Amino acid sequence: MTLIEKLQWRYATKKMHPTQAVPEEKVERILEATRLAATSSGLQPYELIVVKNAAIREKIKAIANGQSQITDGSHLLVFAAWDNYTAERINMMFDLTNSERNFTNEGWENYRKMLLKAYSARDAEVNFNHAARQAYIGVGTALIAAAEEAVDATPMEGFDPKALDDILGLKERGLRSVVLMPLGYRDAANDWLAPLKKIRRTTMNFVTRID
Amino acid sequence: MTLIEKLQWRYATKKMHPTQAVPEEKVERILEATRLAATSSGLQPYELIVVKNAAIREKIKAIANGQSQITDGSHLLVFAAWDNYTAERINMMFDLTNSERNFTNEGWENYRKMLLKAYSARDAEVNFNHAARQAYIGVGTALIAAAEEAVDATPMEGFDPKALDDILGLKERGLRSVVLMPLGYRDAANDWLAPLKKIRRTTMNFVTRID
Repeated sequence: MTLIEKLQWRYATKKMHPTQAVPEEKVERILEATRLAATSSGLQPYELIVVKNAAIREKIKAIANGQSQITDGSHLLVFAAWDNYTAERINMMFDLTNSERNFTNEGWENYRKMLLKAYSARDAEVNFNHAARQAYIGVGTALIAAAEEAVDATPMEGFDPKALDDILGLKERGLRSVVLMPLGYRDAANDWLAPLKKIRRTTMNFVTRID
Repeated sequence: MTLIEKLQWRYATKKMHPTQAVPEEKVERILEATRLAATSSGLQPYELIVVKNAAIREKIKAIANGQSQITDGSHLLVFAAWDNYTAERINMMFDLTNSERNFTNEGWENYRKMLLKAYSARDAEVNFNHAARQAYIGVGTALIAAAEEAVDATPMEGFDPKALDDILGLKERGLRSVVLMPLGYRDAANDWLAPLKKIRRTTMNFVTRID
């Protein structure tokens, strides 16, 4: 399948088979694609939590409008953004880069200083919102990676993020949940959305050309 | 190439060939993939502006730190999010859905009412930030679509969004620019970043498993 065919194949699955688990090697490739996704300045200001534990997924379902995919799927991805950009976090990525590339560079070090200054001057909420946007690049990537594996994935914003952060202990780690994504297999016969046409605005109403 | 190989191949190209243009059919497929990308409630709260006009790209480069890819590439994608969710915009998508699917449904109409109420109760800035996040799913999708076409793409946040909105007349259309993405071909011999190793946090530092 081409990418466009994969995007047409996927949809926000509403009913997943409760007994069909996604093989671990497929989950690994979805996580790896997401890890490789672009982020602003390469800082990767978010993390992924992969919840298989059934009891914890039941708790999460309860604070996510009872959406059944959370427990019918076999794996639940939680995208959790940094609550702020700190000097420690920025330096962690620059130090990792220097160490992996085995050299330092003045231009790169000046860029580090510029980022340290720019992020520390902004308040935590602004920085969190910026980090959350980067996580959404990961969401877009994970959805395609799942489709490439013929795995269904449902991105969800309909949950109580503070309650989820409590369940997963994210606040202590300086993280805030932004998106849930159960992975599983569509139960097409019992999914009201499965037979319905995918609706998108026409290209004319979505793209403006300035030639 | 697998998706993971495509993600390894791509990088935020710093120097593009000024004379190699991306064929229009490739650009069309990148736009189509982005159009098909997921968004919250399917509202697609952003648009794409595709700038080929050289004079306008020069103006944009001037308010984007002089980044050469903007004029060396052949096409510049501008991701522009809705400045707010309005009743008109929400109804546009629900009406389109009903018209394309050729039926109405009580559950769906109740969902429309719920969204109309929820978005109108939030201020414009909160709604804009939510719309911007959805545009980043499109950014993640467009980057993969470009890689699928062996086209280089550089996502950029380093520009003056208000100045760009003025240049493109976006404010009048209720849009706010959030990301630039020149499309072109890497000039690897003259790109300092091309030979350098892609750096990402290890899986251990990016993924937490709760089994």
